[in-house]
Amino acid sequence: MTKWVYTFGDGKAEGRADMRNLLGGKGANLAEMSSIGIPVPPGFTITTEVCTYYYENNHTYPADLKEQVLTALKEVEEKLGRKFGDEENPLLFSVRSGARVSMPGMMDTILNLGLNDKTVIGLAKKSGNEKFAYDSYRRFLQMYADVVLGVHSSLFEKVLDRVREENGYQFDNQMTVDQLKEVIAEYKEICDKEGKPVPQDPFEQLWGGIGAVFSSWMVERAIYYRKMNNIPETWGTAVNVQAMVFGNSGDNSATGVCFTRDPATGENIFYGEYLKNAQGEDVVAGIRTPQPMTKIVKERRGVDLPSMEEEFPETFKQLDGIRHTLEQHYKDMQDMEFTIQDGKLWMLQTRNGKRTGAAALRIAVEQAEEGLIDKKTAIMRLDASALDQLLHPMFEKGAKRDVIAKGLPASPGAAVGQIVFSAQDAEKAKEEGRKVVLVRVETSPEDISGMHVSEGILTARGGMTSHAAVVARGMGKPCVSGVPGIKIDYDAKTLTVGDLVLKEGDMLSLDGSTGEVIKGAMKLVQPEMTGNFGKFMSWVDEVKSLGVRTNAETPMDAQAARNFGAEGIGLARTEHMFFDPKRIIHMRQMILSTTEEDRRKALDKLLPYQRQDFIDLFTIMKGLPVTVRLLDPPLHEFLPNKREEQEEVAKELGISVDVVRARTAQLHEANPMLGHRGCRLGLTYPEINEMQARAIFEAAIEFSKKEGVTIEPEVMSPLVGSKKELDIATAAVVKTAEEVMKEAGVQLKYHIGTMIELPRACVVADKIAETAEFFSFGTNDLTQTTLGMSRDDAGSFLPEYVAKGIYEKDPFASLDQEGVGSMVKMAVEKGKSTRPNIKLGICGEHGGDPATVKFCHNIGLTYVSCSPYRVPIARLAAAQAEIENPRKK
Amino acid sequence: MTKWVYTFGDGKAEGRADMRNLLGGKGANLAEMSSIGIPVPPGFTITTEVCTYYYENNHTYPADLKEQVLTALKEVEEKLGRKFGDEENPLLFSVRSGARVSMPGMMDTILNLGLNDKTVIGLAKKSGNEKFAYDSYRRFLQMYADVVLGVHSSLFEKVLDRVREENGYQFDNQMTVDQLKEVIAEYKEICDKEGKPVPQDPFEQLWGGIGAVFSSWMVERAIYYRKMNNIPETWGTAVNVQAMVFGNSGDNSATGVCFTRDPATGENIFYGEYLKNAQGEDVVAGIRTPQPMTKIVKERRGVDLPSMEEEFPETFKQLDGIRHTLEQHYKDMQDMEFTIQDGKLWMLQTRNGKRTGAAALRIAVEQAEEGLIDKKTAIMRLDASALDQLLHPMFEKGAKRDVIAKGLPASPGAAVGQIVFSAQDAEKAKEEGRKVVLVRVETSPEDISGMHVSEGILTARGGMTSHAAVVARGMGKPCVSGVPGIKIDYDAKTLTVGDLVLKEGDMLSLDGSTGEVIKGAMKLVQPEMTGNFGKFMSWVDEVKSLGVRTNAETPMDAQAARNFGAEGIGLARTEHMFFDPKRIIHMRQMILSTTEEDRRKALDKLLPYQRQDFIDLFTIMKGLPVTVRLLDPPLHEFLPNKREEQEEVAKELGISVDVVRARTAQLHEANPMLGHRGCRLGLTYPEINEMQARAIFEAAIEFSKKEGVTIEPEVMSPLVGSKKELDIATAAVVKTAEEVMKEAGVQLKYHIGTMIELPRACVVADKIAETAEFFSFGTNDLTQTTLGMSRDDAGSFLPEYVAKGIYEKDPFASLDQEGVGSMVKMAVEKGKSTRPNIKLGICGEHGGDPATVKFCHNIGLTYVSCSPYRVPIARLAAAQAEIENPRKK
Repeated sequence: MTKWVYTFGDGKAEGRADMRNLLGGKGANLAEMSSIGIPVPPGFTITTEVCTYYYENNHTYPADLKEQVLTALKEVEEKLGRKFGDEENPLLFSVRSGARVSMPGMMDTILNLGLNDKTVIGLAKKSGNEKFAYDSYRRFLQMYADVVLGVHSSLFEKVLDRVREENGYQFDNQMTVDQLKEVIAEYKEICDKEGKPVPQDPFEQLWGGIGAVFSSWMVERAIYYRKMNNIPETWGTAVNVQAMVFGNSGDNSATGVCFTRDPATGENIFYGEYLKNAQGEDVVAGIRTPQPMTKIVKERRGVDLPSMEEEFPETFKQLDGIRHTLEQHYKDMQDMEFTIQDGKLWMLQTRNGKRTGAAALRIAVEQAEEGLIDKKTAIMRLDASALDQLLHPMFEKGAKRDVIAKGLPASPGAAVGQIVFSAQDAEKAKEEGRKVVLVRVETSPEDISGMHVSEGILTARGGMTSHAAVVARGMGKPCVSGVPGIKIDYDAKTLTVGDLVLKEGDMLSLDGSTGEVIKGAMKLVQPEMTGNFGKFMSWVDEVKSLGVRTNAETPMDAQAARNFGAEGIGLARTEHMFFDPKRIIHMRQMILSTTEEDRRKALDKLLPYQRQDFIDLFTIMKGLPVTVRLLDPPLHEFLPNKREEQEEVAKELGISVDVVRARTAQLHEANPMLGHRGCRLGLTYPEINEMQARAIFEAAIEFSKKEGVTIEPEVMSPLVGSKKELDIATAAVVKTAEEVMKEAGVQLKYHIGTMIELPRACVVADKIAETAEFFSFGTNDLTQTTLGMSRDDAGSFLPEYVAKGIYEKDPFASLDQEGVGSMVKMAVEKGKSTRPNIKLGICGEHGGDPATVKFCHNIGLTYVSCSPYRVPIARLAAAQAEIENPRKK
Repeated sequence: MTKWVYTFGDGKAEGRADMRNLLGGKGANLAEMSSIGIPVPPGFTITTEVCTYYYENNHTYPADLKEQVLTALKEVEEKLGRKFGDEENPLLFSVRSGARVSMPGMMDTILNLGLNDKTVIGLAKKSGNEKFAYDSYRRFLQMYADVVLGVHSSLFEKVLDRVREENGYQFDNQMTVDQLKEVIAEYKEICDKEGKPVPQDPFEQLWGGIGAVFSSWMVERAIYYRKMNNIPETWGTAVNVQAMVFGNSGDNSATGVCFTRDPATGENIFYGEYLKNAQGEDVVAGIRTPQPMTKIVKERRGVDLPSMEEEFPETFKQLDGIRHTLEQHYKDMQDMEFTIQDGKLWMLQTRNGKRTGAAALRIAVEQAEEGLIDKKTAIMRLDASALDQLLHPMFEKGAKRDVIAKGLPASPGAAVGQIVFSAQDAEKAKEEGRKVVLVRVETSPEDISGMHVSEGILTARGGMTSHAAVVARGMGKPCVSGVPGIKIDYDAKTLTVGDLVLKEGDMLSLDGSTGEVIKGAMKLVQPEMTGNFGKFMSWVDEVKSLGVRTNAETPMDAQAARNFGAEGIGLARTEHMFFDPKRIIHMRQMILSTTEEDRRKALDKLLPYQRQDFIDLFTIMKGLPVTVRLLDPPLHEFLPNKREEQEEVAKELGISVDVVRARTAQLHEANPMLGHRGCRLGLTYPEINEMQARAIFEAAIEFSKKEGVTIEPEVMSPLVGSKKELDIATAAVVKTAEEVMKEAGVQLKYHIGTMIELPRACVVADKIAETAEFFSFGTNDLTQTTLGMSRDDAGSFLPEYVAKGIYEKDPFASLDQEGVGSMVKMAVEKGKSTRPNIKLGICGEHGGDPATVKFCHNIGLTYVSCSPYRVPIARLAAAQAEIENPRKK
């Protein structure tokens, strides 16, 4: 018999923390907490296997589930001495989802389950608080009707609005018992009218709730969240059925959400928010402004609401103890939910807390220094892509800020963009290439995709644990929430602060670390790579075995990459050096020449520029390896297409515009990606490669003389498909090297290598390696050719491909490991079979993608090369790959 | 000690026929002939290994070569009782090249080696023919100076021209001894002036001759010929040093070239040409019009020169006997050279004769029927690509022919094209896409590349064994040679026959089978596939195991392919059916629609056309398998690009031209080959596939009902990269199949398959085969993606790639077996691992290339599919592959 149900409570549990695949994160932690003596309301968890069964069997349950649930339910009744559906002393339940990983705000929850027209009377009597009982019943009806039966909650809100208006109430809790009873009657009418009455039978309620949780696994926003976070659909969710405890049963009750450390900054203080006489949903939903946990935070923030430390000093002490117990037990920062019912503390949940990149870094470093975890664990704690937010620009220090309002610093970082007022508008703007700040009263799960494409998020309402704040921190987006004094008009599309009216499209800057809302576009500057960051990255470098280089050809990029810890240049694209206005004319002259002699004349003019480029790079890199790629793009990319520009070029070169036009037409290609480019150019015009080689070698010699540091330039040919092609393509390089060395009377070591970016090159890599001393995988082009997919054109169908799961992720962002990865693996094996010590790198965009970096580590590459800003991420991913799959002895 | 030299002569030989790799074809056959008692002038062969040594060791010889040559030379002296360099009774040598395969006209030859100022006197005395001796010396000097020393022969021709003019001579042999001596003196002066005197020392002459032969292996025209015929450079040539015999020593002497069967038609008659009192070079060079061998040929041709049968009846009988001996011995048609010196017959050479496709077919069939060879040998005798010429069109029977001249039917077949007068002009015309007939006085090896690109060749001079005739037959090009009465003026670029003057660019037709030269452009018709052809192809089909289908979608092509023996359709490109003017408007309407509903409306109009297309194909194919490919090209291919056409379309569809322009712009792609096409279309617009599937299945049901023949349509998706993609792309097909079957109340078997044309598809072929019942390798696109090379754009660099040997052949014509072939092999292995009985085909252009067909046989494909005209070639190649590497038990 399969065990579908696991009980917990009263210092015992059938489950454990390591059973999260079966029980979900929440269920496993409830069991674990219960086992270690934390006060947890008793309950039981229905396993994720039931979810799988449910979807595989046409939305039905295993035959023996019912019996197991009833047995577990009886156990809870016995533990608490109350009975489910009992009219005198009713037991109420919450029903919550809980997947293997946390999906905040994604899954539906039902509270107060077990209330009906009769048990509500029992609850009122037993609690001695009629208003609390009827308010609970009202909440239950509304929630159940919405979540389980699909009655739109706006219908119920209208009723509340009317009652509030008629009575001049500001809050719902001002309603009298009679008014609540009236509301309940109207709620029932609404449901009847919709043909969806809320069942009176508590067991029917229970099964309805369980079914709703399982169903919520496949709602659109859950699917979107999973896709965004790479969570497989097959994992499923568990269902947690737990005895209700009430934070809203009076003024000696409260409910809150807290963290063992500050999830925004990582500081080791007790952090969180609570609300007196409220249910948990009230805190998270951001409708009331919550109170701080501690006096310190209260003072720091200048909040005038009392802290829990002041209002509930004893319970606070107990909770602070639990905070330490849980962090020591789980060895990670915890995100906890608690409720105080009539002075008694109950822990509802604990889980590893979501945190900003900055907090993740600080917590990992400090926990390692405290001895709570070791360095390797600290390294594993940082999500490689979360590190990204630490590398993002901040506002210039000391720059004038036109601060128009100040809210909570909900997610750190700086954001600048045009104002938009809806997720849809944000997505539209993204498509148009505009950067936006999403401004909302509050956010809901429907807004997630819009938040994802925004630079930052501003919400008028909500606390530090509001939906907007939690999601933004997870995404690494700057967020300011709960800003007093601002008005948002969705219809007029305006944001008003006092007299100031900002419209859609106006520029706005947000400082998510201070909560400042700033008018206009602030200038962004680079973050500093010191302190905890420097410490952490030094641990990373101790661990990793995979090298990390950068793709750079400008001194600025090269310097940035060095600052980020790049260990050399893996790809210097020489053609980028030709687009400078002073140089492009010579390039064009070269292309428009009809004889080799004339081409050489034009190239001679480019030589000094290109030589200086390399001297600059070598100087910045101070002897670290530099791989230079010979000219790659088709020549027509250098010629102007517009008539006026063509005339200008013709004039400047003293030739007829017809010549320019004719040459442009001649160079036109049907599929330039597969055309006359790469080493094919050097085959036709060896003089180009000769010039480039001369610039490289002369620069290397000059640099070595001046700096006294030896450099061994690595020269590589693009788009090679066979050994013979590489031999011919690099013949000019080898010849020039000999010449330059002879002229300078100096010996210079250099290396000949090749891009591997064609499937054919992978197939014959063993032969290519006879000549090539190194391979650099050009996974951009290799993806294009292996998949037969043009990066420039894929926009019209690739999103659908990802949506339909044909490719798990955008194959141009994260390496298609099954397809392109297999080609790379083949080339690695073949290359090593000929030249066991061959140097192997990757220099496509994928080199900065953590999943790809791990793949590269696992197949034995020597290094990855990525854009400067991705260098720290690649270093981290490399270290994590080493920890997961050690290469070092 | 390596044996570098092999002797032969006097009924003995150190070599054998099967040593052609070492001795070359000529050397091996001289040895073989000598062994079986054929009268061969004694001599020796220097092996091809010496050639290899020569090129690997900076043009030097092995140390012991000299001694071996001298020993062999002594043996010849002893056999003939004459001495090399002897002033009384001098022995003279010919020095000839001889590679593993015959390279006619490619290699240099030196005759009369051993003559000098003293030995010429001895020769005169001994032969009693002073004029012959001095003429031989003159010839020797001219040839040696030209071939060995590089003195341009025009300098010598000038001397001869002057002497002829001064004396009113028509031929050189009219010169007196004194005039010859004068000429010799002038020749020597010319050489001295050039600083290149011909050595007097016979041994110096000999080594000069040997060196010249080895050097000639690397001259440009030899390299070109090898490339054209796929002969590796490493084979090298042997050198044959053989005692001279003289066909020009008087009227009882002669020389000739003959074949055991007619090399133009294959008829079993003694065929050839000879010249009295001449050297062999005179026959081949085409300067004098040679005489026929037999009375029959003489009568048939209406020649008024006596035949050898009449002039030398006894020797003719002996030669005819040798003809039979040699063909029986070699079991193939022989091409022989002979010389009669003073009434004695000497065989100089025998080799397998070059022949036209028609002759090859007839000889193979007749030899098999005679029992000389078996059927498999007959099949191997036909070069698969030579069969091509039999499939070429001929002139309509009975059509009026404006015959302006008649020459020798040197190479059969019909040619129509514009007149050009040089190989350069022919090549230029080819580049411009014009078809030409090359008209020359006579051709030389320098003309080969021009002949290659011409439709046919016309030479004013030369016989059936002239350079033009031999080369044209090898190429399968129609050729008419030796046309009396026509004048060619290279400067004026005119061809004059009587009063008629044809200019460059005028249309001319040639009938290479009758020798007729026809004014204007004749209409071409298809050859009949009966008689020997039918018999031969039936043998082919008995042998082969690989299936041969065709790529066809029009009834005309399908019918042609059936006539050529296609066993089904391997690729019906449905998009080709949309370009008909009646249909394209609906297609455009579909593309310009913005809603699925509108698209469906437009598609509904296309449905009846498409259904009828398939009914037609099924009817022609009579139940043979038909593979239909779903829509493949990007949609913009169906939209007009010109403003006027866009306006027309807009008008016809009643929409604004801006809509047409906007949609066209929207569909524009940077790299359409890698864009929104193939199964990607069906993913975006499943309704297109639904319509196509409906047409296929409705047609299949209607056809089956009408014809009572079951058809199982094979539906395939293009550009598939993964299993999931194929599943989604074909979901519409499966759904439609169910619908159509339900509607018709009929069960229909059908097969789902896929093109394999992306490297990624090869990599994941095992998974794709879970869904796909068959693979069809689209090697056009697979070549483009594997090589990263656009077929449309490769023209600017691919010729250089082939010239530099990066690709052995054009990879779009003959499969790049190392690169693309490896991908195909991988996919075959992976596909079979999942589905052992998976049907495997190829439908790229390569399917009709013999080398590719053999490759497909060897890796275990089920069938190849090619254009209708390539079907017989593919069948032959398949049979040859089976013989070489049997699959059938």
